[in-house]
Amino acid sequence: MINYSSSDFASNPFTVTVSRGPIVESHHHVIAAISDADGKLLRSWGDVKNAVYLRSAIKPLQALPLVETGAADALNVTEQELSLACASHNGEASHVDAVRDWLKRIGLDIGDLECGTHWPKYEPAALELASAGFTPTAAHNNCSGKHSGFLSTAIHMKEATQGYIDLDHPVQQRIVKVLEDFTDLDLSRAPIGIDGCSIPTIAIPLEKAALAIARFADPSKLETDRAIACRRIQTAIAKHPHMIAGTNRLCTALDGAARGAVIAKVGAEAVYLAALPELGLGIALKSLDGADRAAEVALGALLDDLGVMTDDIHKSADPYFHPILRNRNDIVVGHLKAVFD
Amino acid sequence: MINYSSSDFASNPFTVTVSRGPIVESHHHVIAAISDADGKLLRSWGDVKNAVYLRSAIKPLQALPLVETGAADALNVTEQELSLACASHNGEASHVDAVRDWLKRIGLDIGDLECGTHWPKYEPAALELASAGFTPTAAHNNCSGKHSGFLSTAIHMKEATQGYIDLDHPVQQRIVKVLEDFTDLDLSRAPIGIDGCSIPTIAIPLEKAALAIARFADPSKLETDRAIACRRIQTAIAKHPHMIAGTNRLCTALDGAARGAVIAKVGAEAVYLAALPELGLGIALKSLDGADRAAEVALGALLDDLGVMTDDIHKSADPYFHPILRNRNDIVVGHLKAVFD
Repeated sequence: MINYSSSDFASNPFTVTVSRGPIVESHHHVIAAISDADGKLLRSWGDVKNAVYLRSAIKPLQALPLVETGAADALNVTEQELSLACASHNGEASHVDAVRDWLKRIGLDIGDLECGTHWPKYEPAALELASAGFTPTAAHNNCSGKHSGFLSTAIHMKEATQGYIDLDHPVQQRIVKVLEDFTDLDLSRAPIGIDGCSIPTIAIPLEKAALAIARFADPSKLETDRAIACRRIQTAIAKHPHMIAGTNRLCTALDGAARGAVIAKVGAEAVYLAALPELGLGIALKSLDGADRAAEVALGALLDDLGVMTDDIHKSADPYFHPILRNRNDIVVGHLKAVFD
Repeated sequence: MINYSSSDFASNPFTVTVSRGPIVESHHHVIAAISDADGKLLRSWGDVKNAVYLRSAIKPLQALPLVETGAADALNVTEQELSLACASHNGEASHVDAVRDWLKRIGLDIGDLECGTHWPKYEPAALELASAGFTPTAAHNNCSGKHSGFLSTAIHMKEATQGYIDLDHPVQQRIVKVLEDFTDLDLSRAPIGIDGCSIPTIAIPLEKAALAIARFADPSKLETDRAIACRRIQTAIAKHPHMIAGTNRLCTALDGAARGAVIAKVGAEAVYLAALPELGLGIALKSLDGADRAAEVALGALLDDLGVMTDDIHKSADPYFHPILRNRNDIVVGHLKAVFD
């Protein structure tokens, strides 16, 4: 009479289940694609022709103009700052101080950031700020590093710094061009939304997102300067993983432990893009409901399937890839698991 | 070549879409049932025979023994405290102070709560606590009111107060009996998980959850004492809606504005149970992925469909039922919408 097995997810090619006690309490549907740099799809799950806003997962590509215009060299952008330019950071003191110093060095300040303000995503950082009697600034915004990169490029190119978040500003137009180059798409009629930090976010079919991040992973067939820029950004993230996210964050745990073999970046609404330079592959995935917890588990399952997990990655990233749910008394109450073909 | 319309949700009977710019960015699958007090299903969407952990959505029924044992009267439990016994509260000063006073009056203190500790769910309350140099106690746990009710019943019944969270303690066994009475089910072999606050949570088919909350809404065919207890709890919540949740929370906004016509209670992992006393109906729903944002929108759509919305409810609850997404610069970037047959 009572149905104790959830049937809904059985037919879906890629599901992440959330169990509590003996049954599945909730579940998530995931779409995913693994591509090489020529656009050959190695594997895919679900409708990967569907256009997806990549949100912050695309930040490593959005940072390319910072290097390619020569702004990074001209303005002495450090390797740490280059990682921060790709970040969705926690708003910890280390991130905020780095943004302040960077802006000061290029003759700007926090008031020039157009990303808006929010309390740090990392609860201890927010509580520490509040305990000290402070409120957040735009430097605490998780995108403030990316915006510092945008401002650096605008200054170097002698463009207006005001309005750099608008689609028709050269800063954004250079990014559209990068995305067109990397996806082989004409994006002039693509759906465009506004991101959390107010820049345009462009919907791209998931399989083309996988292609784009595969080309970033293996830039050997791109122009030399672009290939060098891709590798420089990869190195910056791998060497300074704290800057790309922060304490208790998967991107930091994974990108640090992988030592350059995986460059993964989360985006809002449960997107992940991961570059695998050693395999020359790119992974793009989204949990269709926007749940980050599912996207992390799905990414782990794909990396495991591809054989790229090392002892170091297991040690650092397994809490995110195989999460155990504990309650307010620290009792184990459930776990998450990937179920896919 | 590019697919800009998401096809995945077209076949699902009840979906909540999250749009950004011109397209749907994410979406949620919902199951829902509307029942009367005789168990007649008026409407249903999805597999409502599936067993679902009702989590905190069942709190109004978990509070019945507090009244039915005579504990509430013997221990002078106020109407505000009765609402608090059904709460998943914000941990605002008003909630925490009320729990402290209640426990003191029955000769106990915060150390007797077995719910565990967490920072207040309501960010301003957490930041205020941190600013003042404090850390949270078990009284800040969103379930501390329910646990104060459990302790009150144990004291009145001269039972051990220690271990009141265990399934075999009379406090929990009385709740199992209530649930069996209200669902017409033998729950002795039902799946049992551990809830966030460490009490057992029992999986119940969604259609039977709708029946249970319909009987709570229209208790006219129940024993007189039980019917009186149901109405007393309804009144307590309707008259003291701040106690059941708090600032910026749907349950408080809706249950206050509805003036007794709707008693809705959220549960973790996107469950809602809503009693409609004037119609003699009960609503049970869950977003299958556990996303609260979808459960709120789905509840609004069902209340609208049933014709129970008033100007007051619209005014208070529309921000939850028809949410507009704004970014860090307060720019409108998207919205949520229910799509169902």
